[in-house]
Amino acid sequence: MEEQSSGKQGLRDRHKERTRTALIEAAMRLFAERGYGHVTVDDICADAEVSARTFFRYFRSKDALLGATFLDLSEAVLASLAEQPAGQDAWQSMRAALLECCADVDADSALFLQSYRVTNGAPDLFAASAGALIERERAVTEVLATRLTGRDRELRAQLLTGLGIVALRSAMEAWAGEDARRPLADVLPRYLRAVEQGPAELAR
Amino acid sequence: MEEQSSGKQGLRDRHKERTRTALIEAAMRLFAERGYGHVTVDDICADAEVSARTFFRYFRSKDALLGATFLDLSEAVLASLAEQPAGQDAWQSMRAALLECCADVDADSALFLQSYRVTNGAPDLFAASAGALIERERAVTEVLATRLTGRDRELRAQLLTGLGIVALRSAMEAWAGEDARRPLADVLPRYLRAVEQGPAELAR
Repeated sequence: MEEQSSGKQGLRDRHKERTRTALIEAAMRLFAERGYGHVTVDDICADAEVSARTFFRYFRSKDALLGATFLDLSEAVLASLAEQPAGQDAWQSMRAALLECCADVDADSALFLQSYRVTNGAPDLFAASAGALIERERAVTEVLATRLTGRDRELRAQLLTGLGIVALRSAMEAWAGEDARRPLADVLPRYLRAVEQGPAELAR
Repeated sequence: MEEQSSGKQGLRDRHKERTRTALIEAAMRLFAERGYGHVTVDDICADAEVSARTFFRYFRSKDALLGATFLDLSEAVLASLAEQPAGQDAWQSMRAALLECCADVDADSALFLQSYRVTNGAPDLFAASAGALIERERAVTEVLATRLTGRDRELRAQLLTGLGIVALRSAMEAWAGEDARRPLADVLPRYLRAVEQGPAELAR
């Protein structure tokens, strides 16, 4: 498997990755210009210079494409979590994984900002990706559970996952609210600290 | 408006409420017997002795019916939040509202347990209600924001809402995991405390 990825398979994978990214970028550009509701799959295909058949090889629907940005982000969190040093505390691992993934958002901030705004304006659009996002959340919980000892590992891992997501979501809301002027990596730490300090501090 | 609710309108409302509840109960009974995928809208209608036309007056789809239990719960949290004493701290209000709403779950625990299990087994089913649930979450945030003073009220309210939901979701997971043997009202406090103590404590 390792060998394949630098050979033919690797080339094909990179081509696939480029096509997928081209479709997402074309879509986001068109959504920004015309509004989500006024863009069809055909418009996206024409802009990205691919056939509708190709589009549907990557995404089930226009809504699914929109969710892809956040699914990719949740994939990145998961991958980063798996790479955290063994023996590192579960919350420190979650924290580090979330902070690392800010780099992905910051490297493509216009794209993420646009996705965030379109879905935030019409939460129904998330429906197409809701199932997949919940699956990723469970996968994160499973990885965190392996870093816990003692009682109720699953439930504690679920709580830790939830707390991480709450921090990330609020940080993205703040980041989008100031038009991504500051990198997300600079915004998130404050929200992680807020979750660490707990609700009593927030309600003060 | 007040007067109407005890007159004709009130009767009609109560009839509507009964029909809706009858549909949900019939559906849950059939889901439990045959599995969600093997139950059609027609089956539900036959069991509840209503026409398909009536069904669609209450629910857009079978998936929407499934989400209704949790939408009702989020409505109850919202209503209870609005009734919390003025001047009570935002988190104490959220806490109290969540605990009060456990009574709704505990009064109908078989129905909630069944809904929880069906949606938990197939998160895609939540898609039909995802938009509506996010709307309720925002409404909760708005109410909490009115109970905050100082800087960043919106964002702090969003964090508090998120923390409350994390506690409730984990509590429901634990409650369902032990077949609703204990009332949710007895399970939730521990998860509220876990969120209050913060992630460092959970990761220990």
